[in-house]
Amino acid sequence: MPQLRKDIIVGRWVIIATERARRLAAFVDPVSAETDAKDCPFCQDKTSAIIYESSGVKVVKSGNPILDNGKAFEHRGHGLYDVCYSYGSHEIVLETPKHMANMADLSLAQIKGVLQAYALRMQEHRQDPFIEYILAYKNYGIAAGSRNIGHSRSQIMAVPVLPMRVKDKISGAKRYFDYHERCLFCDMIAQEREGGQRVVLENEHFIAMTPFASRFPFETWILPKNHHCDFADGIKGYEQSLAGIMKNILSRFKIGLNDPAYNYMIQTAPAKNMSLFKDDYHWHIELIPRLTRVAGFERGTGFYICPIPPEMTAVFLREVEG
Amino acid sequence: MPQLRKDIIVGRWVIIATERARRLAAFVDPVSAETDAKDCPFCQDKTSAIIYESSGVKVVKSGNPILDNGKAFEHRGHGLYDVCYSYGSHEIVLETPKHMANMADLSLAQIKGVLQAYALRMQEHRQDPFIEYILAYKNYGIAAGSRNIGHSRSQIMAVPVLPMRVKDKISGAKRYFDYHERCLFCDMIAQEREGGQRVVLENEHFIAMTPFASRFPFETWILPKNHHCDFADGIKGYEQSLAGIMKNILSRFKIGLNDPAYNYMIQTAPAKNMSLFKDDYHWHIELIPRLTRVAGFERGTGFYICPIPPEMTAVFLREVEG
Repeated sequence: MPQLRKDIIVGRWVIIATERARRLAAFVDPVSAETDAKDCPFCQDKTSAIIYESSGVKVVKSGNPILDNGKAFEHRGHGLYDVCYSYGSHEIVLETPKHMANMADLSLAQIKGVLQAYALRMQEHRQDPFIEYILAYKNYGIAAGSRNIGHSRSQIMAVPVLPMRVKDKISGAKRYFDYHERCLFCDMIAQEREGGQRVVLENEHFIAMTPFASRFPFETWILPKNHHCDFADGIKGYEQSLAGIMKNILSRFKIGLNDPAYNYMIQTAPAKNMSLFKDDYHWHIELIPRLTRVAGFERGTGFYICPIPPEMTAVFLREVEG
Repeated sequence: MPQLRKDIIVGRWVIIATERARRLAAFVDPVSAETDAKDCPFCQDKTSAIIYESSGVKVVKSGNPILDNGKAFEHRGHGLYDVCYSYGSHEIVLETPKHMANMADLSLAQIKGVLQAYALRMQEHRQDPFIEYILAYKNYGIAAGSRNIGHSRSQIMAVPVLPMRVKDKISGAKRYFDYHERCLFCDMIAQEREGGQRVVLENEHFIAMTPFASRFPFETWILPKNHHCDFADGIKGYEQSLAGIMKNILSRFKIGLNDPAYNYMIQTAPAKNMSLFKDDYHWHIELIPRLTRVAGFERGTGFYICPIPPEMTAVFLREVEG
């Protein structure tokens, strides 16, 4: 069963695959698997029981789950160290019954269905008293960490500890709110809309922009213009609008950057005590094409080096013709 | 001139290349450059002035510096945001006059020379009142973030702000020390030597082990057995011993893992006020083969998923025959 282990120096959790560890040979001679429809496990439906299904979007338990809530949650010491056993959930969102790779090519209705599936699964996992955070995210392409490409899908992970990155974001936003009595993200949106340099596009409810301190070239964030800390509640009534801006941005990546690998991550408030975060946190989506590699400097410092300014990538993305 | 920009949410600094930005086309159709000796800029000596040279090891200013201390340090606001201009230093350590790619193949004397060069440059940069941290690191291979491979080299970066990752490590170590009045790293070394499961090898002065909460498969740390917060002072008299354990580990990566890309990063105390860190911080080197890719889950949470336990990779690395 996988373990959660804590880095006692910085307090970061790591999930360590144990019994189901990948074979050593896989590291020595790695292979990547591009599947066609005939061999695609997601077309053949060789997946486990369906958890949710609606208009072509299916959520299933991962066939190779990294976390599993089949056992009781246990958090204990191991000499100096901290270990949790395996608790949590790992689900796959099959975004379309067709064998299509890139979410950019899905219909608006289909993308809307995916967003609704995220929201519903988040609401469900929140009921579990041991779940502290739920992340919905996508790995598209080998360079983005996908190991089996060809069928558009994303993942939902529910974890029993509050991740370090979420803690950092929340405490930064809280610090700002305590000082200004305003939401940091709302202020950022206002400043970006005034300047316009880093805005890629807007619709009535959402704005897409390249962040001022972008870590990666063409990094793009989508934020709701209306303040809300929580994705699942916050998108109610706005699913179509969000699907529209996501499809638009992903199409710009595909056309302008030659179908790059990418990740997106929905950054929402913690699963518990949401009222604590409602004023100062503001959910958003980070979309990151995978065009460069993180090197030793980034690993050693936590600094990033972005080889092109976000003002330039925003111009480029604005000008991509669909 | 490059800018340092601060992510105001989490407080992380990013270096943004501005005027010298990579051309957009390089992202759309990336190419990787493997050079032979004839075209190698490091063999041809088409590099800038030599800063340091001793027994075949040369330190030069980067031809394409990410930071530059030619201008005064300035830290200012930009609306909501924080910017620093460009201050710092970016140097390349040419590890050998020969066109050889992998440090594992250098002689012990040559590796010792490289370690001495790091120490001397660190001591020099420390004199600069604006420099807060100095990182010596290596990117070997395209997957490790190198863009021009073939000639063994590493880099030294001196930055005017304390990096987030260093802050996190230091405050974690301090918290432990405040509670136990013992060094966290010394306690880790003692526990690992007792158990032995994660020890790859030891010599008289150093231990190499796969950390309990490894983020990456085959991640290996080298730590000095004698407590010292600072690399540059701490290796005095132990250069040969450290060169030996580094060459040994890098050779095990090369032989056992089929010459993988890798990074290493020297994790030492901040450049200023070192007496504050002398009891609770303990310098070490992180060595990370680049066999897997960071995906959306890691990006979204700061969690890592390690697909194989460090106890297994330690057995594997112990058994690699040189």
